[in-house]
Amino acid sequence: PGKFKAKVIKVAKSISKLGKDDPRRIIHSIKVGLALTLVSLLYYSRTLYDGFGVAGMWAVLTVVVVFEFTVGGTLSKSLNRGFATFLAGALGVGAQRLASLFGDKGEPIVLGFLVFLLGAASTFTRFFPRIKARYDYGVLIFILTFSLVSVSGVRVAELLEMAHQRLSTIIIGGGACIVVSMCIYPVWAGEDLHNLVVSNIEKLASYLEGFGDEYFHYTSDDEEKDRVSSKDKSFLQGYRSVLNSKSTEDSMANLARWEPRHGRFGFRHPWKQYLKIGAISRQCAYHIEALNSHIKSNIQASEEFKSKIEEPCTKISEESGKALRSLASAIKTMKDPSPANIHVEHSKAAINELKLVVKASSLDQADLLAIVPAATVASTLIEIVKCVDKLSEAVH
Amino acid sequence: PGKFKAKVIKVAKSISKLGKDDPRRIIHSIKVGLALTLVSLLYYSRTLYDGFGVAGMWAVLTVVVVFEFTVGGTLSKSLNRGFATFLAGALGVGAQRLASLFGDKGEPIVLGFLVFLLGAASTFTRFFPRIKARYDYGVLIFILTFSLVSVSGVRVAELLEMAHQRLSTIIIGGGACIVVSMCIYPVWAGEDLHNLVVSNIEKLASYLEGFGDEYFHYTSDDEEKDRVSSKDKSFLQGYRSVLNSKSTEDSMANLARWEPRHGRFGFRHPWKQYLKIGAISRQCAYHIEALNSHIKSNIQASEEFKSKIEEPCTKISEESGKALRSLASAIKTMKDPSPANIHVEHSKAAINELKLVVKASSLDQADLLAIVPAATVASTLIEIVKCVDKLSEAVH
Repeated sequence: PGKFKAKVIKVAKSISKLGKDDPRRIIHSIKVGLALTLVSLLYYSRTLYDGFGVAGMWAVLTVVVVFEFTVGGTLSKSLNRGFATFLAGALGVGAQRLASLFGDKGEPIVLGFLVFLLGAASTFTRFFPRIKARYDYGVLIFILTFSLVSVSGVRVAELLEMAHQRLSTIIIGGGACIVVSMCIYPVWAGEDLHNLVVSNIEKLASYLEGFGDEYFHYTSDDEEKDRVSSKDKSFLQGYRSVLNSKSTEDSMANLARWEPRHGRFGFRHPWKQYLKIGAISRQCAYHIEALNSHIKSNIQASEEFKSKIEEPCTKISEESGKALRSLASAIKTMKDPSPANIHVEHSKAAINELKLVVKASSLDQADLLAIVPAATVASTLIEIVKCVDKLSEAVH
Repeated sequence: PGKFKAKVIKVAKSISKLGKDDPRRIIHSIKVGLALTLVSLLYYSRTLYDGFGVAGMWAVLTVVVVFEFTVGGTLSKSLNRGFATFLAGALGVGAQRLASLFGDKGEPIVLGFLVFLLGAASTFTRFFPRIKARYDYGVLIFILTFSLVSVSGVRVAELLEMAHQRLSTIIIGGGACIVVSMCIYPVWAGEDLHNLVVSNIEKLASYLEGFGDEYFHYTSDDEEKDRVSSKDKSFLQGYRSVLNSKSTEDSMANLARWEPRHGRFGFRHPWKQYLKIGAISRQCAYHIEALNSHIKSNIQASEEFKSKIEEPCTKISEESGKALRSLASAIKTMKDPSPANIHVEHSKAAINELKLVVKASSLDQADLLAIVPAATVASTLIEIVKCVDKLSEAVH
């Protein structure tokens, strides 16, 4: 029983953590429950009075399948479902008429052939990356409705009546989803993408701002270690989540395209630009990953050389961090990003400083080998400045 | 009309490219068409004789929704759908009985409340990463079936009859999918994951094997350039796809868990190990990305120093490439990966050689600044050897 209790507590903790991490999850769950209850009760009362019948369940089905976390997701699925049902229904009726021309024996063969042909062809279109990204669900519903209509249509006499009913219930279900999802605490995919890109750049900025201190004052002294580890080191890990952000960004940008104008985001907001900025941030994160391997490397560089390049390196790192932070806040507030330029300039100036320092120290160094790690750090920092420069161009 | 013709040709070309890139796509489309036709005709003939009725369309619906590209995907969706329908159906009947105790006026309120509660709670569970990865579709079907049964049950007298019909049609539809997907040219997610991991490591190997030549013999001489660019340079780009492979690998590993024993893969094949290997390959790819920025960098290193480190660096790069290739083939054939060890040892020996060369050349260098880029290349190569070493441990 003790074990069971511990497990219950563990689950309860993970639930509350999930809710705390993003309270919109709780709101979303309530919204789904609400839409579902609304449509269910409608169905319940309609069947009481005028026999909306089996078709009513399509409304419930639509709500369950179509309601997504973001407004863009809900809209994309609703519209896909609506148009695909309409198109496939019309084609299905056509197919059924065509098949009936072939007599009682020919009918099932022709119908079977048509279902096979459209099913296979539509399935193949789902492999096109562009269709996969935007209309995957629509194609699925198209296959579904076409097979249902063309095959079941033979038995149900009032095919048009049925099609009308089906479409109207889907509109009711989809409409309920869209209204609930847009009116009660809406979650916009576009805004999420915007915030994700900003927070990714901020994570890189935090790393770079802290790097100088971390690399040049890292000691293996135990006492020192304790003092250092008590400080918050999470900024050293933050950049890792940037490395694998591509798929999230891609799917959010796809959903954002479906969203209407909201807040500061117009209808034709340049979502592609976010993907470009995201790609450059990732490139920057790759370099930071290379940088990071030097912080706790056991091949330590010569202290003498390190202390020489400390000032310019710290400056490069800090200034490029500041440039990133300034770019992030420019994206966040959608203001002119030119204040970042001065930091980019500073970091470029620091690179020149670094070059002078290195040049000056060229001959009084005894051990070239010990210089290599520090030199690597320096040249990685230079690469990072290049990335920051590219990023600032992309933001403009 | 010329424009239109050009567009048609373009679309036709992209279709044939899609099919050539992976002919399994065409087979998959045909398989879906086949399963769909089978089930449709079954439904068609059943309605003719004994009125399988509306429930038959659930079989068609199941085929369309459940048939996935890989066997794992199809199995996961079928099983999820089957169990969720069963569980939710039972709970729905219970909910409906419970609600009927509250009289005619209380019934819709209690039902509405129950639908709301279970809908919201189930939606929330979909945010748990583990449930999201494996049972997302099951939870969706659970919500769907529960609301349908608990609400529609009130009207349909023979609820158990309906439930039985629904389940049997789902079993027919799901069964058809599983049989077609497993018996006709099956696509195993596990095998795909296996091949993906192997090909990713091979891509890294090709890069490293070619890097030495590329970096040390890069010239800005025009004539030279033409000669060089006529060679195939695609190996220099291959590693890029490794950078963003995480999400594909994760989803394939999830699907692979559902698959039964097939070919050389047992039921409890260590799929997690592939993810670990994948993560290390990605880390290696990050270092290669850092390396790559030096190939065409305009800050060129001193030729003298470069020629000094050329031999050991080329050796490190080549040997680590060979080690990777040997590891890849060991994974591919599931044989003992120890032949790779000798290459890892060679590359470590080359690192020591490099260190000696650098140490020896420490004082006769005039311009330290010009050494920095080459030194960076050398130390990045050392980091790559570390990754390769980790990878070879993970494979063991």
